[in-house]
Amino acid sequence: MGFNNANSAQAEILVIGDEVISGFIVDTNSKFLGQRIFELGMRVSRITKIGDDSSAIQECVENALERSDWIILTGGLGATHDDITKSVVMKVFGSNLRRDEKVAAMLQEIFKRRNRDIPDSVQTQCEVPDNCRVLYNEVGTAPGFRFEKKGHVLFCLPGVPHEMKHLFEQYIAPEISKHSHQVFTQRILKTTGISEAGLWEKVGSIAELQKKVNIASLPSHLGVRIRLSCNEATKEEGEAAIDEAEQELMGKIGQYVYGRNEELLEEIVGQLLTEKSMTLATAESCTGGLIGHRVTQISGSSKYFKEGFVVYSNDAKVSRLGVDQNTLEKYGAVSEPVARLMAEGVCRVSRADIGVSVTGIAGPTGGSEEKPVGLTYIAVSDSKGTWCGKYIYTHDRIKNKERVAQTALNLVRLKLLGLLREENENAKLP
Amino acid sequence: MGFNNANSAQAEILVIGDEVISGFIVDTNSKFLGQRIFELGMRVSRITKIGDDSSAIQECVENALERSDWIILTGGLGATHDDITKSVVMKVFGSNLRRDEKVAAMLQEIFKRRNRDIPDSVQTQCEVPDNCRVLYNEVGTAPGFRFEKKGHVLFCLPGVPHEMKHLFEQYIAPEISKHSHQVFTQRILKTTGISEAGLWEKVGSIAELQKKVNIASLPSHLGVRIRLSCNEATKEEGEAAIDEAEQELMGKIGQYVYGRNEELLEEIVGQLLTEKSMTLATAESCTGGLIGHRVTQISGSSKYFKEGFVVYSNDAKVSRLGVDQNTLEKYGAVSEPVARLMAEGVCRVSRADIGVSVTGIAGPTGGSEEKPVGLTYIAVSDSKGTWCGKYIYTHDRIKNKERVAQTALNLVRLKLLGLLREENENAKLP
Repeated sequence: MGFNNANSAQAEILVIGDEVISGFIVDTNSKFLGQRIFELGMRVSRITKIGDDSSAIQECVENALERSDWIILTGGLGATHDDITKSVVMKVFGSNLRRDEKVAAMLQEIFKRRNRDIPDSVQTQCEVPDNCRVLYNEVGTAPGFRFEKKGHVLFCLPGVPHEMKHLFEQYIAPEISKHSHQVFTQRILKTTGISEAGLWEKVGSIAELQKKVNIASLPSHLGVRIRLSCNEATKEEGEAAIDEAEQELMGKIGQYVYGRNEELLEEIVGQLLTEKSMTLATAESCTGGLIGHRVTQISGSSKYFKEGFVVYSNDAKVSRLGVDQNTLEKYGAVSEPVARLMAEGVCRVSRADIGVSVTGIAGPTGGSEEKPVGLTYIAVSDSKGTWCGKYIYTHDRIKNKERVAQTALNLVRLKLLGLLREENENAKLP
Repeated sequence: MGFNNANSAQAEILVIGDEVISGFIVDTNSKFLGQRIFELGMRVSRITKIGDDSSAIQECVENALERSDWIILTGGLGATHDDITKSVVMKVFGSNLRRDEKVAAMLQEIFKRRNRDIPDSVQTQCEVPDNCRVLYNEVGTAPGFRFEKKGHVLFCLPGVPHEMKHLFEQYIAPEISKHSHQVFTQRILKTTGISEAGLWEKVGSIAELQKKVNIASLPSHLGVRIRLSCNEATKEEGEAAIDEAEQELMGKIGQYVYGRNEELLEEIVGQLLTEKSMTLATAESCTGGLIGHRVTQISGSSKYFKEGFVVYSNDAKVSRLGVDQNTLEKYGAVSEPVARLMAEGVCRVSRADIGVSVTGIAGPTGGSEEKPVGLTYIAVSDSKGTWCGKYIYTHDRIKNKERVAQTALNLVRLKLLGLLREENENAKLP
């Protein structure tokens, strides 16, 4: 719901390349462009991907120019024989080639830095269509082009993602913004530890909220993202409407919301640890190191992450963390008592303020009637005590590991916020 | 190069949904379909994505039916008000609705298993167009449809990826195969530890090879994938041509090729460890647990993975692995002597047959003139001795970590194959 921007001007995306339509590479450009154009308040009406076939490209460009105000084309501007976009577009616009001295100078500069001669094939990049504006590319060798016909604008960009993004932000985003009469504002609330249905049950009716903002939710095995968006005349009005909606939602589901927009759970955990001057250590069995990996994705994590143990074997659980051999034998490695001893052990051994442990059966093998695949215990320990939860996940091995790591990090977050108590119902949710 | 199949029949993909063109979700369906159709020997000419807009959908379907022999449409078949594909397609084909008792029975079965009543909205799924073949969906609630007009076929599939894949394999793949006069055969050789340019330099001219098979290469920061493909009348002929090309390539670049097609480096390492009945332990600093995480992605890894240490702090390097405090102070944590002591230490402490260690500066902070961001030492130790390599990676923090883990796993592979010697030039390559 609520994906259409009200603005009447339409944008269209064309992606060129055999490797894209044959599925050999994942096209991330059209997702980026779709999202950015949408954010700029423009409606994307269509995305078309075609192979390196000049008549098909020509037909698509001509139809798009009839239909849409803004066309953004990526791909096929490189210097190999497959790259035919330039010649096709020149045919559509009746262009001739001219030499562009600025492009030539920029290429010289690039290859000077690389300490190499400019290959002949790359030299052809200095030849540009004579009836377009050149989009000078500071981060690569292929320049982009801006053509215009009867008020309809075609931008041609190279397909290399970082070059495409650079030229988009430099030349296209400012121009689209100027023509967009509304400002599209959006905010993502990232939740975890509750299902999509559970979330909306807690929120109740959103009919009133929907009058002010559009609300959409997108579930994945790591949590549900809630998107709040609206079109208003100014950024300030949009932000204010979203602030209000967020506040209302937060009153009902606040504890499940760990971050906004691009914020990562491991980043939020790092901020909380930093604020409280506390340190963390991990004791992982089934996740195999994934929790430590995620914690250390954040620059500066060495300040609060002391160390991690991947205690895959029973021996390691005993030798590294001092898990009691009798408890291990009596309850098995995947059990609440062992998870608790692991979390307490890792605190003691590493002298970290908070210890988190996971022990489970990631699958697909290793399960039993009593202890099915996906059964996992996660414990969090600090000076105040140890909390332990039981979870059963039913994904495949890889998704199970991801979900366990996500839950473990979320439990650390809740512990740091003082929200982890035995009576807390959140504890029982996945 | 070599992406076009010679077969004359053309397939086209249509993806419906506002959430796809606004970039809110990543469309993985069109990549899957592009790849599978290509593998089945058919040429995909175009992928079009449009929003939930009935006139645009109608226009696209009508144009595709004019142009292409096979059209595969996904999305918009759900039971909410946004899902308008069924009504649009019925307009194109002049259909009426009829009740399908088999769909009704399947829905009843699904909701009985869930112990829930069938919601009214889902009941509408029993109503199907009267002039199509129904594609019964065993894994979801939305059936698919097969329409035909003047020999051109339109398949409509739901957008949920696993439902789409299920119906594709069940109904579409067999039909496309039957109409494909050639068989497309392909094989991916996965390499790491060498650049794309370095690889082709070692291979030399591929003009002769290209007469028999198409060769394409796709570099990423984790390695270069080489795709060998050809169109032959039979699968056997295709495989034979590819076998021959692979053999020739392997003679020149064999040691860089760690696997084929979907094989993972951690899987190959696991196979080698299993074959040799050897065990592995990891000592990670800058990768933070990523190597352990990757090793344990493989089901059954508990048989050969003993344990891992994430020794993020200097203290941990000393206490867990017995790294000498003086060496640490003299050379610093990111140094060859420390990497060596870590690999040897983890073997000794865990009693694993092979130990791998990494210590580096992932960035973006923490670098100096003498020790820049990206500087990493990776050591592999076994009973025969310890090997250590120095690497400088220039990606961002996250990609640096990924690349270090990839190199570390590859060094374990080379060690297990007896290919890791000081004089081995591979050692000096990234």
